[in-house]
Formats: sequence, C-alpha cells, structure tokens
Amino acid sequence: MIYVREGNIPKKWYNIVPDLPYFPPYKLPNGEEVREEHLYRIFPRECVRQEFSKERYIDIPEDLIEAYERIGRPTPLYRARRLEKALKTPARIYYKREDLSPTGSHKTNTAIAQAYYAMKEGVKRLTTETGAGQWGSALAYSTAMMGIKALIFMVRVSYNQKPYRKYVMKMYGADVVPSPSELTEFGRRLLKENPDHPGSLGVAISEALEAALSDENTKYSLGSVLNHVLIHQSIIGQEAMEQLSSIGEKPDVLVGCVGGGSNFAGLTYPFIGRMLRKECEKMDVIAVEPTEVPSMTKGEYRYDHADAAAMTPLLKMFTLGYNFVPPPIYAGGLRYHGLAPSLSVLVKEGIVKPVAIDQKESFSAAKLFAETEGLIPAPETSHAIAAVIRRAVEDREKGEEEVILFNYSGHGLLDLEGYRVVLSL
Amino acid sequence: MIYVREGNIPKKWYNIVPDLPYFPPYKLPNGEEVREEHLYRIFPRECVRQEFSKERYIDIPEDLIEAYERIGRPTPLYRARRLEKALKTPARIYYKREDLSPTGSHKTNTAIAQAYYAMKEGVKRLTTETGAGQWGSALAYSTAMMGIKALIFMVRVSYNQKPYRKYVMKMYGADVVPSPSELTEFGRRLLKENPDHPGSLGVAISEALEAALSDENTKYSLGSVLNHVLIHQSIIGQEAMEQLSSIGEKPDVLVGCVGGGSNFAGLTYPFIGRMLRKECEKMDVIAVEPTEVPSMTKGEYRYDHADAAAMTPLLKMFTLGYNFVPPPIYAGGLRYHGLAPSLSVLVKEGIVKPVAIDQKESFSAAKLFAETEGLIPAPETSHAIAAVIRRAVEDREKGEEEVILFNYSGHGLLDLEGYRVVLSL
Repeated sequence: MIYVREGNIPKKWYNIVPDLPYFPPYKLPNGEEVREEHLYRIFPRECVRQEFSKERYIDIPEDLIEAYERIGRPTPLYRARRLEKALKTPARIYYKREDLSPTGSHKTNTAIAQAYYAMKEGVKRLTTETGAGQWGSALAYSTAMMGIKALIFMVRVSYNQKPYRKYVMKMYGADVVPSPSELTEFGRRLLKENPDHPGSLGVAISEALEAALSDENTKYSLGSVLNHVLIHQSIIGQEAMEQLSSIGEKPDVLVGCVGGGSNFAGLTYPFIGRMLRKECEKMDVIAVEPTEVPSMTKGEYRYDHADAAAMTPLLKMFTLGYNFVPPPIYAGGLRYHGLAPSLSVLVKEGIVKPVAIDQKESFSAAKLFAETEGLIPAPETSHAIAAVIRRAVEDREKGEEEVILFNYSGHGLLDLEGYRVVLSL
Repeated sequence: MIYVREGNIPKKWYNIVPDLPYFPPYKLPNGEEVREEHLYRIFPRECVRQEFSKERYIDIPEDLIEAYERIGRPTPLYRARRLEKALKTPARIYYKREDLSPTGSHKTNTAIAQAYYAMKEGVKRLTTETGAGQWGSALAYSTAMMGIKALIFMVRVSYNQKPYRKYVMKMYGADVVPSPSELTEFGRRLLKENPDHPGSLGVAISEALEAALSDENTKYSLGSVLNHVLIHQSIIGQEAMEQLSSIGEKPDVLVGCVGGGSNFAGLTYPFIGRMLRKECEKMDVIAVEPTEVPSMTKGEYRYDHADAAAMTPLLKMFTLGYNFVPPPIYAGGLRYHGLAPSLSVLVKEGIVKPVAIDQKESFSAAKLFAETEGLIPAPETSHAIAAVIRRAVEDREKGEEEVILFNYSGHGLLDLEGYRVVLSL
C-alpha cells in the first residue's frame, strides 16, 4: 500500500475551543473584551460567528462540499515507504497530501470557505495581505471560484523579487498591488516618507484592513491564527483520521510545521480533541518552528497584537513581540511573531510539544524527501519533514514501531531558488 | 458531479500499431530497414521490443503498477462545469488531470516505465536531452524512484534562462549539464568553434546519444515520438474510457495538443483503436499544433530524421524538415519539427484532424480556464483548451449537446513568465 485515496469529505468542521481547558478572550487595547459586533465591519458575519462559537462541530454548507471536491478533497494519505527504507526505521510514516490543491497548499481549505461566506452575504470584494504569495494565491483562486473580487496587498520587496505567485494571482483575475501602495491613506503616508519603502506583512495587513473598512462592499480575509481559520482547516485531520482507521492504523505521533498554526491545527486538532476528551490513548504531538523565528521555544505567553502595525485586537499567545522582525528565511509562511491563541493554550499546557529546527537541517530533509518520496516540499513543510526524520531515526535506535503522521502542507515548485541557494544545487 | 476520481490502473498498455491501416518501417540512411538489433545499444531491450511489437496489448509489470500509483494514477477525470457555464455551451466538457503527477505533466507515465526497464536490465544510468526541462524533470524523478542515475543534457540557453526545472532535476539527484558540454566529443567540438554556443535540442540529443554509446552501463531515453513511448502513455486514455463509461458518457470529440504526439496519443489512441476496429461510433479527433510550428498543417509527409543533428534513423512522418528552427514560443514542448510516425498515419488518413492555433489565442484560453476551472495550464496544454473552446462555442451556436474530452497534460506553475509577457499581467 502506497496510499489511501478513498475517503469522505467531512460534513462538519471541528472546533477545538470547547474542548480546551480554557480560552483567554481577545481584548481591545482599553482592556475591554472583544465581542462579535466589533468584528462585523471587518470579516464576513458567518466567520465572526464561528470565531466565537462554543459548538464542537459546525456544519459545512453543501455548496462548499462541492468546492472542496474541486480542490481535490479528500486529499490522499500517503505512506512514506521509500523514506522509511532509506532511514531503516521500523516506524510507519504517513503524510497528508495538501500540496495537490490548485495553488499547491492547504491554504485553499479556508480561503474557499471565507470567499463562500462573503459571496453569500453579498460582499463584493475581499482584501488581504500576502508575503511571498502562498496565502494570496489561495484567496485569489477562491474569490475567482465564488465570483467575487480580490484586492491583495503584496509586500513590495516580494512583489518585485518573487514575482511568480503574483502572476498566479493575476491569472485568477485578482488585483495585486505592491504594499505600501497609493490605494490607502496609510500607504500614501509611508510612500511620502520613503518612496522606496520595502513594505512588510504588518504594513500590508494595515492597508488591507483600511481598504476593507473604507468600502462597505469590501471585507477582509485572514489566512491563519484565528479560530474560524483553524476550524476550516480541521477537514485535513478529520479526513486523515478516517483514512488511517480504514487501514487499521492509529497514530502515535503527529507532526506539523508552525507559522501562525493553521496547517498544524488542521491536521492535529481533530486528534487532540479526542485526546482531550479521553476518547483515545495519548499521542505525542510535535509542533515544528524555525530556529530563526522561535515564538514557541523562546517567546513569551502574553497578550499581543496579531499584526506588526498594532492595529488588531490583543490576543493571548506565544509571541516574540509584534514588532519582531523575522530574519529572511525562505520559509516565508513561518515568519510570524506570534502563534494561534488556541495552539498557544495547548503548548502552554504541555499537550503540544514545540521543537525548533533550522533552515539547513530542514532543507537537507527536503532533499532526502525528494529523492525518496519523489516530491519537492515547500520550505515550510520541510521543517515538519526534518522533525519526522529525527523521530524515525530515534525509533530505529529504540526499535520502536511507531505510526507517525505529518501534514505535507504544500509543494515547493515556486520556491526552488531557496533550495538552490541553501543546498548549493 | 465535478469529477470521477475512482478507476483502475489498466493492467496492459495499448499499442495502436496493429490497428493502423499501415505502418512504414524506420530506415537507415542507406535505405536498409531498422531492426531491433540496431537499437539495442541505445535503448533498454524491453523498450526496443515494444517499439517493434505487433501485439495490441502489452502487460504492465506489477512493480510498475505500484510506481503508477505513486504518481497518482488513476488520475481524476474532471467535468469543466464552470467553463461550460462561462461559454453558455450545451456541450459537456471533460478533462484528464495529468498535471497532478509529481513533476506536473504526463511525461512521468513513460519516464517511470523506461527507468524501470533500465533498472531491471542492469543499466546504471539513463541519458536524455531536455529543452525547458519538462521531460528532463520527469526522467530525473523516475530514475530517482528506480535507484539509477540520470545524466541530462539541457539546452544551454534554457539552462541559463529558465533555471527552475534544472533545480527540480537536481533536487531529484540528477546530473544536469548545459549543452553543448565538455562531456562529449561533439560538445567539445562545438564549444571550441563557439564558446558561447546557445545549444539546441538537436545538439542535446546528439550529446545524450554519444554519452549513451560511449559507456556500456548507460542507455538513452526519449520522451515522445516513438511507439514504445506512446504505448506507455496509453494508460491515460484507457483510464478515461473507463471513467467516462462509469458515468454513462461516451465522447463525441477528443482533443489534445501535439508536439511529438505523446500526450495526444496517450489520451486518444485507445479510443481511436476502438474506432478503427469499428467497435464504436465515429468521433472527431482533433490534434492541436501551434501556428508557429505547423508540422501537420504545413509540413510534408516523408522520411526524415527525428533530431536536428540527423543522427537518428529516418522515420516517415509529417515534418517541417529536421533543420527547421522553431520560433521561440513559450510552449517549449510543442517546438518540434516532426510528428510521431503512428500519428502521421492517422493524420494522413484523415482519422485525426489537425488544427493550428497561435500563442495569443491559446494563452487567452488559458486565462479563461484559470478563472473558471481554477487551474493554470502549461502553455502546451493551453493549445488544447483553445480548440475545446472553439468547439464548445460552435456547439452553442448549433445547439449541439456533445461530449468533449481533452487531455489536461500539465500545469503551468513553472511557465508563469510566458503568461506575464503574452497576457501583459
């Protein structure tokens, strides 16, 4: 057996919040708790409702099931037989193929849901920010599929230096502007001060928010961190659970890489939920961050802004500080100062174990994965692979026949330059 | 219904040669007919055997079935519902998702078979040529999976200007050299005459052949044109036939783009075979070539060399002349002076209808496809899409409820620069 391709698309998303030991409320800078009403002008209403939901399961609309089919769900679950053999490990390694979506990563799982709700509520346009473009291209795809518009603020330095995902977005008909831009007051102010401003994710978030707030037919879309985003991603883990169970397997170890936390949560939360409800045995759950951006292993657990411009409400999370400037590692999706509040609780309580792995080790793991499994992972995903390899080697030394499951969150076909530099290809 | 993902990997490949009205033998320059022995030093023996086979069906080895599973076979068959809607056509359009393979195109279907036979026969290394790198990356993937080496001669101008697929090949552990190279006598001679020689596919073929002939553990691999290559691709059409039939459909029109002919043959030959054997009704079979490289619509049907350096035997085929220099269109895989001999017979006999479509129309079709179906096609594939759109629009005008099936032969994620230029993105 190399893979399980059969499976069903779940009818409901899973929300971990009611299963958590606690969930600190979001706060405004004046200390007031954030309520649904505060967010209605920003996000589609249904997304706000899900953000505050205490329901364990949330129905997936019928139309969205069809949209999920279109992006290839259920995605196949692969057994990494050739990697296992190369490592001479007794461990059985499985991975979920989220790279097979049209834009090459798990990001479409929530983008398509957010675009759907926006369309249903009569929103004409979604705005968002993007760095290297993984999230922006997922949203561009999704708005095209739902027949609404997208305005994407892309960090100027990426817009100029990493143009390929910009062309992906434009092929889908999205408007993509380098940020800072002339489209917003904030952007114009920054450009006036410095016409060559390189931009940053923080600036792009501020512009996307301003663009949403200044047009009543426009709302804003976020790609990670918040509960409703992680809820949409739960489809990954639910599918994997059914697929593993169909071949009589259950995981001992779960692994995912972590930027804001959405691909990690997507795979692991349905399993962690069962663990929290004591419906299954204990599993080791490993969250892999880059050594260069160590929010979990070196950050503090405290209230902080989600963006670099301090425009968002305060979230209680592991953070390096909202003004932390991540070094320019190639895994752009892991260059985030904070961590999803729900995942922060799990790390704080020792339910999820963080580990930091550097770029060199990750990229070497990616090379081995390409040579054995035949797939070139995204730089983000390579961090998860490196942690899996560490564990599988330990299993070899201990003679441990464990089942390891990880999220193959995306492919690296638009990230080859990074591999060239780091691996001296 | 958006797609059929179920299906079986066929147990046998289909060989159209015994069903053709005639098949002109290959010839040596002295007029002698080419026999199996002439090719043993070049290709793996089993490939040579298949090249001359008169059997309609050829068993696929059990190990190869597993290798086909790994690359995602059977590939899903999609219904282009959103494209149909945008065109307001009564036609039902289906496409086979060959883009989902690890290197993004149908090329792995034969690369993995050729690498398998090489490995089985104790060949230590395969050599080949590649232009933009689609074929080279498929062979690099396949040799990695079979545990043998690959030496790939990449046209120097592509090696320098389109580096991304070079990195793909290197990630799989292949040796990639710019051609002309210092590794062969021919390459050294050309470099001596002109140190800045830009290379060409013809030169790269010559070097790959020389490298194979000068080392007894090395053989050569070709990505299109020859019978054994097209036989391996027949898996596409056989799967599609079963999948369409499982939903009670049969095609009225078959469409594919044509360079040497391998993706076109892969989809259409199993259907054409049934037509030739009068086991089904007549279908329109449309082969789409670029206006810029009109081998079918403006070429002659005569004996010619398969390579630009006149090193290969003579094949009877539609050709623009082996020394024709194709203009630099972005669809690199369609820049070929000739046409598979088997396909040439079908065109000559009027069983396959050729049509030429230019880059501008093809790329506009690709844009519409991206916006409706959510997938960014390879520039080659965009030619097939343009022909499908023409037909679907005719169907709208005639009120014709036809079933159109085409081969979505590859994705365009490593070809975005071409779209940017032609579509002014």
